[in-house]
Amino acid sequence: MQIGEVNDDKLKEACGVLGIYNSCEDAGLGRTAYYGLYALQHRGQESAGIAVTSGNGIKYHKDMGLVSEVFNDEIIDGLCGKIAIGHVRYSTSGSSTLINAQPLVVKYKKGSLAVAHNGNLINAAEVKQELEEQGAVFQTTVDSEVIAFLIAREQSEDISKAAIECAKKIKGSYAIVMMTENELVGMRDPKGIRPLSIGKLNGSYVIASESCAFDTIGAEFIRDVEPGEIVIVNEDGLKSFKFNDDNISSLCIFEFVYFARPDSRIEGKSVHMARMEAGRQLAKESPVEADLVIGVPDSGTVSAMGYAEASGLPFGIGLIKNRYIGRTFIQPSQESRIIGVKLKLNVVKDVIKDKRVVMVDDSIVRGTTSGQIVRLLKESGAKQVHVRVSSPPIMHSCYFGIDTSARKELIGARQKVDEIRQHIGADSLNYLSLEGLIKSTGISEQKFCSGCFCGKYPLEIPMESKEHLFEKR
Amino acid sequence: MQIGEVNDDKLKEACGVLGIYNSCEDAGLGRTAYYGLYALQHRGQESAGIAVTSGNGIKYHKDMGLVSEVFNDEIIDGLCGKIAIGHVRYSTSGSSTLINAQPLVVKYKKGSLAVAHNGNLINAAEVKQELEEQGAVFQTTVDSEVIAFLIAREQSEDISKAAIECAKKIKGSYAIVMMTENELVGMRDPKGIRPLSIGKLNGSYVIASESCAFDTIGAEFIRDVEPGEIVIVNEDGLKSFKFNDDNISSLCIFEFVYFARPDSRIEGKSVHMARMEAGRQLAKESPVEADLVIGVPDSGTVSAMGYAEASGLPFGIGLIKNRYIGRTFIQPSQESRIIGVKLKLNVVKDVIKDKRVVMVDDSIVRGTTSGQIVRLLKESGAKQVHVRVSSPPIMHSCYFGIDTSARKELIGARQKVDEIRQHIGADSLNYLSLEGLIKSTGISEQKFCSGCFCGKYPLEIPMESKEHLFEKR
Amino acid sequence: MQIGEVNDDKLKEACGVLGIYNSCEDAGLGRTAYYGLYALQHRGQESAGIAVTSGNGIKYHKDMGLVSEVFNDEIIDGLCGKIAIGHVRYSTSGSSTLINAQPLVVKYKKGSLAVAHNGNLINAAEVKQELEEQGAVFQTTVDSEVIAFLIAREQSEDISKAAIECAKKIKGSYAIVMMTENELVGMRDPKGIRPLSIGKLNGSYVIASESCAFDTIGAEFIRDVEPGEIVIVNEDGLKSFKFNDDNISSLCIFEFVYFARPDSRIEGKSVHMARMEAGRQLAKESPVEADLVIGVPDSGTVSAMGYAEASGLPFGIGLIKNRYIGRTFIQPSQESRIIGVKLKLNVVKDVIKDKRVVMVDDSIVRGTTSGQIVRLLKESGAKQVHVRVSSPPIMHSCYFGIDTSARKELIGARQKVDEIRQHIGADSLNYLSLEGLIKSTGISEQKFCSGCFCGKYPLEIPMESKEHLFEKR
Amino acid sequence: MQIGEVNDDKLKEACGVLGIYNSCEDAGLGRTAYYGLYALQHRGQESAGIAVTSGNGIKYHKDMGLVSEVFNDEIIDGLCGKIAIGHVRYSTSGSSTLINAQPLVVKYKKGSLAVAHNGNLINAAEVKQELEEQGAVFQTTVDSEVIAFLIAREQSEDISKAAIECAKKIKGSYAIVMMTENELVGMRDPKGIRPLSIGKLNGSYVIASESCAFDTIGAEFIRDVEPGEIVIVNEDGLKSFKFNDDNISSLCIFEFVYFARPDSRIEGKSVHMARMEAGRQLAKESPVEADLVIGVPDSGTVSAMGYAEASGLPFGIGLIKNRYIGRTFIQPSQESRIIGVKLKLNVVKDVIKDKRVVMVDDSIVRGTTSGQIVRLLKESGAKQVHVRVSSPPIMHSCYFGIDTSARKELIGARQKVDEIRQHIGADSLNYLSLEGLIKSTGISEQKFCSGCFCGKYPLEIPMESKEHLFEKR
Repeated sequence: MQIGEVNDDKLKEACGVLGIYNSCEDAGLGRTAYYGLYALQHRGQESAGIAVTSGNGIKYHKDMGLVSEVFNDEIIDGLCGKIAIGHVRYSTSGSSTLINAQPLVVKYKKGSLAVAHNGNLINAAEVKQELEEQGAVFQTTVDSEVIAFLIAREQSEDISKAAIECAKKIKGSYAIVMMTENELVGMRDPKGIRPLSIGKLNGSYVIASESCAFDTIGAEFIRDVEPGEIVIVNEDGLKSFKFNDDNISSLCIFEFVYFARPDSRIEGKSVHMARMEAGRQLAKESPVEADLVIGVPDSGTVSAMGYAEASGLPFGIGLIKNRYIGRTFIQPSQESRIIGVKLKLNVVKDVIKDKRVVMVDDSIVRGTTSGQIVRLLKESGAKQVHVRVSSPPIMHSCYFGIDTSARKELIGARQKVDEIRQHIGADSLNYLSLEGLIKSTGISEQKFCSGCFCGKYPLEIPMESKEHLFEKR
Repeated sequence: MQIGEVNDDKLKEACGVLGIYNSCEDAGLGRTAYYGLYALQHRGQESAGIAVTSGNGIKYHKDMGLVSEVFNDEIIDGLCGKIAIGHVRYSTSGSSTLINAQPLVVKYKKGSLAVAHNGNLINAAEVKQELEEQGAVFQTTVDSEVIAFLIAREQSEDISKAAIECAKKIKGSYAIVMMTENELVGMRDPKGIRPLSIGKLNGSYVIASESCAFDTIGAEFIRDVEPGEIVIVNEDGLKSFKFNDDNISSLCIFEFVYFARPDSRIEGKSVHMARMEAGRQLAKESPVEADLVIGVPDSGTVSAMGYAEASGLPFGIGLIKNRYIGRTFIQPSQESRIIGVKLKLNVVKDVIKDKRVVMVDDSIVRGTTSGQIVRLLKESGAKQVHVRVSSPPIMHSCYFGIDTSARKELIGARQKVDEIRQHIGADSLNYLSLEGLIKSTGISEQKFCSGCFCGKYPLEIPMESKEHLFEKR
Repeated sequence: MQIGEVNDDKLKEACGVLGIYNSCEDAGLGRTAYYGLYALQHRGQESAGIAVTSGNGIKYHKDMGLVSEVFNDEIIDGLCGKIAIGHVRYSTSGSSTLINAQPLVVKYKKGSLAVAHNGNLINAAEVKQELEEQGAVFQTTVDSEVIAFLIAREQSEDISKAAIECAKKIKGSYAIVMMTENELVGMRDPKGIRPLSIGKLNGSYVIASESCAFDTIGAEFIRDVEPGEIVIVNEDGLKSFKFNDDNISSLCIFEFVYFARPDSRIEGKSVHMARMEAGRQLAKESPVEADLVIGVPDSGTVSAMGYAEASGLPFGIGLIKNRYIGRTFIQPSQESRIIGVKLKLNVVKDVIKDKRVVMVDDSIVRGTTSGQIVRLLKESGAKQVHVRVSSPPIMHSCYFGIDTSARKELIGARQKVDEIRQHIGADSLNYLSLEGLIKSTGISEQKFCSGCFCGKYPLEIPMESKEHLFEKR
Repeated sequence: MQIGEVNDDKLKEACGVLGIYNSCEDAGLGRTAYYGLYALQHRGQESAGIAVTSGNGIKYHKDMGLVSEVFNDEIIDGLCGKIAIGHVRYSTSGSSTLINAQPLVVKYKKGSLAVAHNGNLINAAEVKQELEEQGAVFQTTVDSEVIAFLIAREQSEDISKAAIECAKKIKGSYAIVMMTENELVGMRDPKGIRPLSIGKLNGSYVIASESCAFDTIGAEFIRDVEPGEIVIVNEDGLKSFKFNDDNISSLCIFEFVYFARPDSRIEGKSVHMARMEAGRQLAKESPVEADLVIGVPDSGTVSAMGYAEASGLPFGIGLIKNRYIGRTFIQPSQESRIIGVKLKLNVVKDVIKDKRVVMVDDSIVRGTTSGQIVRLLKESGAKQVHVRVSSPPIMHSCYFGIDTSARKELIGARQKVDEIRQHIGADSLNYLSLEGLIKSTGISEQKFCSGCFCGKYPLEIPMESKEHLFEKR
């Protein structure tokens, strides 16, 4: 689960990336990168890494764990220089996966290169095979290594040309931040599936998965990297290259549903405001006679406020997240599973007692936790519990960097809404329509990938990928 | 700071205590105690401990750290038995203080004894001296050791008599849970300064600092232990003894302001509801022309909702707590202090931009963080920031178990309200009146100790205590 | 096992103690104590602790682990002052026993007191009961706590008087180092069962279990503390008190056999020289026709050299200890036990091949390892293996601070020598006679306790102790 | 230093390698590899790793630390399969070097490959450049990665052909153990500079740097891998390929001086016996009138015995290594350096007092420790100290896998013998002649590389290497 998230029945974002080009050599570069990564922590809790250069080789540190666990003062102070890139990766387990932590740092014929990637290359196996035929050896299973090899084999002195050639070979979703000893590179796939933004700090540029990183380090948001765009930052400033003309944006709509931090802006829209609006839409689409609207913290709270506002029902805090949820607490035995929810969520009985409660959550993936929360509310005195979900049922796998698990685990793919309602013990259950969700963002439908809801993807998925689904990479 | 609390400028509760008497020998006793302690974690994050007995000696485990850090499956499974007591203690640092972790477990002439204490004995030094004259040696600096010696020197076979004699000797605040090899004992000082409640679980009794622990382990709240009451639970059930007749309750009002968990009930009142009401009172006492009410998470949120409701202003989520606040993140250097607040709090610019904002917090102790949050809001686009505090200025030290630090550090004791306003850079600043606070609880004024606000204490404070103030113990 | 010892079938010494009185306040006091304790590490590997005073309270640090693990620069630098005492304790496992680590530091009516003890009080239970009747509570199971209470209950201002009264109450073996805020105290039981020596450093005094600690810290050996003697070191120098007149020394003979470090001197005799001589005696008592004498490292090597010298046979290095024996290496499964010995001992095949080998070891306790070494030698090409043990069979339990385990585990108590020979697969087996062993020390027979060999003890053992044998304390 | 070595003024061996081909799939494979690596621990204490295959992919675990620290039961039990290779690397510090731990495991066009290397490629930079021109990217700085790329670019299906082509490209010293999913490969440079041996276990083959690993795991020594030989072990048994005809052996003579474990056999000769003989030669070359011969433990002991035997002087144990030397003990301050030696070495005063002592050590590198030991002996009562070194002065850097540090740090390169004598405060100092050293091994002079003593190397050293000297790799 995302640590600190009480309802762990969520989709998992794969990664967050960050790049900083300093206007001048700076001893505090590592620290700035650290704070920026810290702001992107919600995009990945498995491992964290920062690489820096002063123009002569690349230093880096990466390890399994949260940003706050991976770095300490001594390490950060050693990461000084002119350019930095950083990466956070989502939480699985096992130290053996350290080899897969990013940024990936390599030496190649033109010097040192560091690569950080968010997304999923759907033709990685194919490209790897081609590279192996040419003598390549792979030490990791991350796409970044494929990207590094593609960059390395180009003869051109010009990193922009190498990046364009690389982009021509790879298919899938990618928001890439790269660094040579002299340049910072940002690169976004032709569909713009994963987000990537440009900011300005002290007269120079920063690149990050989300704008919230800019706010934390005091940078100013400039614009998103466009689909099919490569930006190169060096001492001459920022240059842009388009490697693909007919780019039709297909931004992952789940960034608005759950992944992005509420204080981020994506495609010019406030994520928080979109979620509030989704709650309002939900109220319009699926009203219910009730006494109170509550949210499942943290991610359901805002939509619950929107629902309350639009429905005219009072908003209340019926569930409070325990502040001390740690990674290691002792799991209850099978027979007392509900205690697991009680440890994470404190019910304010006086708020919900004898009430008909509307409980708003942002999504239901496997359906494991929702039922426990409904039961907890009822045991605590709620007369009725009406579940409202501020996004549609998840019915299809994602091939572009989200861990939707196997399709067979998706309750929305297996059961009808009323079956799910019975499963979770709710008095009523409604999902927001895809139209309603899109409307809440204020962005036109064509600009989104909503494959997990509707099964239509912006790229053709190779059969092989369909079989393997999402292998953690 | 309380881990997970973004505004660390808070008073510190000293301890939480817990006791469980099983209806029968139970392998899951340690686990139940663990979950109960976990629910009391907000009352102390320094150390945690559980002691158990099966009627023949006492086993225990205690260490520095959070409940989830101190125990693991193996340890908990080893803590089986018939009676358990537990303790959490507030966070300072230093392994040398492990000796002060509780419960304190000793052997004395009648067998084994374990003691857990929340509160502060104001005559501890005096009693210690008397005991030392009789040959006692002290290995810790906690009051529990004094209590253990007082129990041990009694000749009576009857633990209730020993407890009564002990109670006659000690002065100050105490909510004590003790355990012999056969009995569970709860004991609350004659003024009832610190809370202590009785619950029922599987036909037997549990005792805890707050009722939220009962909810977590599935116990039913029965009643508070009364001021000046000793309850003894053994195989014959629960017996009550009063050791002091003229008990006038002087419950610590700060339990309602900040300490207690919102889902607890104290003196029959919901803490959450009282805080909501305090917000309403605050709106009535100190209205302001504004566009939006926001709370400082987590503790200011509920009062902010109450303020919004009573004032008719919209409630918004303008500040979101970072989910990944850890104990170890790298501190920003002096010149960029505000980044420290930014790491903990994410501002939703779109919510507060160009707004006149009412920012509600529950208390201001030293005034260190409030100013940073005001500045952050203004930098993020708030037109005005009106700070409203849902309790009065803290002007006096506490001698009854709360770490108010030295009086000279209390900004409320040093500066007038308008000076504080200037200090924190707010456009206006108002505190809730003591009357308003008391009214919000629905409990009569006489039943509270509000010494930290008004300087009147339920017991005379020895000069010595006044000088030493609160030493961590 | 003692870490680094390849034959772990050894008796276990319980503790080492150390005390330093500085001629002046010294920032390096902790460091000196650390190095001194490090030199006594062979006497106990379970826990280590140092307490210091500057005349106003006592600071201390103690934890489970080796001296080098328990302390670091920061901790040691914090342990500055005028007087220090230290303690090492033998290796068992379990963090719960931290409470039993020493020195034990207490506050009592005259201030602070720290106590470190090597030995075993055979009337501890009785004394504890008496103290409990007077209201004492015990938090540990170590004898030091009993000693602290006995000191604390004395009214005299004079620590020497309190120490004498304490000495009158306790029975058994004790080499005690204590510290008030102004005095360092050394104290040895009337039989002098455990060793304790006085040294001089920079014009002031140090006290330690063994003289090797003096060599390490650059102190000069002065004399042993005498049986029944108390020495008090303060700013006026060293004063001696005898609390018992008819003290007949009964020094534990096993100090010469195995416990003491070879470079220590006890009762004016070199331990190394005594072991060399024991080897010579063994050769005289039990010669054998052979080609080579080897020792089982480390403790058998010196006696092997003595055996070689006296027998005229060549001494060879047939077994080399692995330098990297750690505490944690993966244990071989049952069926391949011999690999466990191979990991600890490297056989130099070219040395022993086709040879008739005399293998000398210092003692056999349970007989578990010796057979594996014999088998290893034979598998490596030795034609014959004649085992010679430089001490008699251990046939009786120790009640004075040595862990001889239960008597039934002592192979010498269960089997005749020839049975043992068969058990370990040796071609011949001989033990040194008790007379031979005593002769090798150059000290008269009357001055030793050799209870583990002969069953005669210097004090009458209470039945209770006989039943409980040696419980780890 | 090598942990557990008291005189840390030693040359550092770079690595140890190990390979096991099972006759059948074996759950205990990881355990066997673990024990084998444990026996090679003296060849490298920085990091340890084991890779295994069952014919379908390669699993591995590697980390910084000793073999006993890197692996635990769970990890080892997960490393089951048919083929294993292992590697230990010498001790530097810094977690960032984890990337350099071996075996290096990669995927290439024919599947998975694991490589472990002992030695130093003197043309690594050149080969890397050539590979980079072809598009290679390097993630580490170890030669194993160069080797992996060379193997990967070969088209042949036959691993022996790929290995031969690889061998034709690389220059320098190498004892390589590699593993595909079906074959185990051993490979030794044409000069045979680093040792590599073949053993037999349960009807199949094992390969290791030293034969002592065979003894530990119960394998039988067969023969050394010959210089310029590649051996391939698969289900058809072992096949040998020679890739270079005019191989004149140039075995590193320092293996006999210090690196190899005494119980190993190299080139058919016992290392222990050679060291004993070196001591005898030393006595013949450099006799001295004295009373006693002692060795500096551990490595000087055997030569001291040889010296004693040949000189007719008695051998004594005057210095005993402390059993508890850990990696972390607190360093003494500058002014009391000698305490550092005292913590590692216990002087048996009664042995050396008033004696003219011959102190034998195996080598002197920087000359830092020897002087402290001489001083310690004199302070402890030795009348004279005559230092005898059982190898010649080290005057030249090594380019073949030994860390001789910069030449300017070698005391033998900077000072004449008598200056060194004065530096260390010895009454006399003599080194063994190169002739004497060679004679002691019983191997002809031509078969050795003795470049560090005489400056003549078996291969021409590129200027570049001369400048960079030995960079840790």
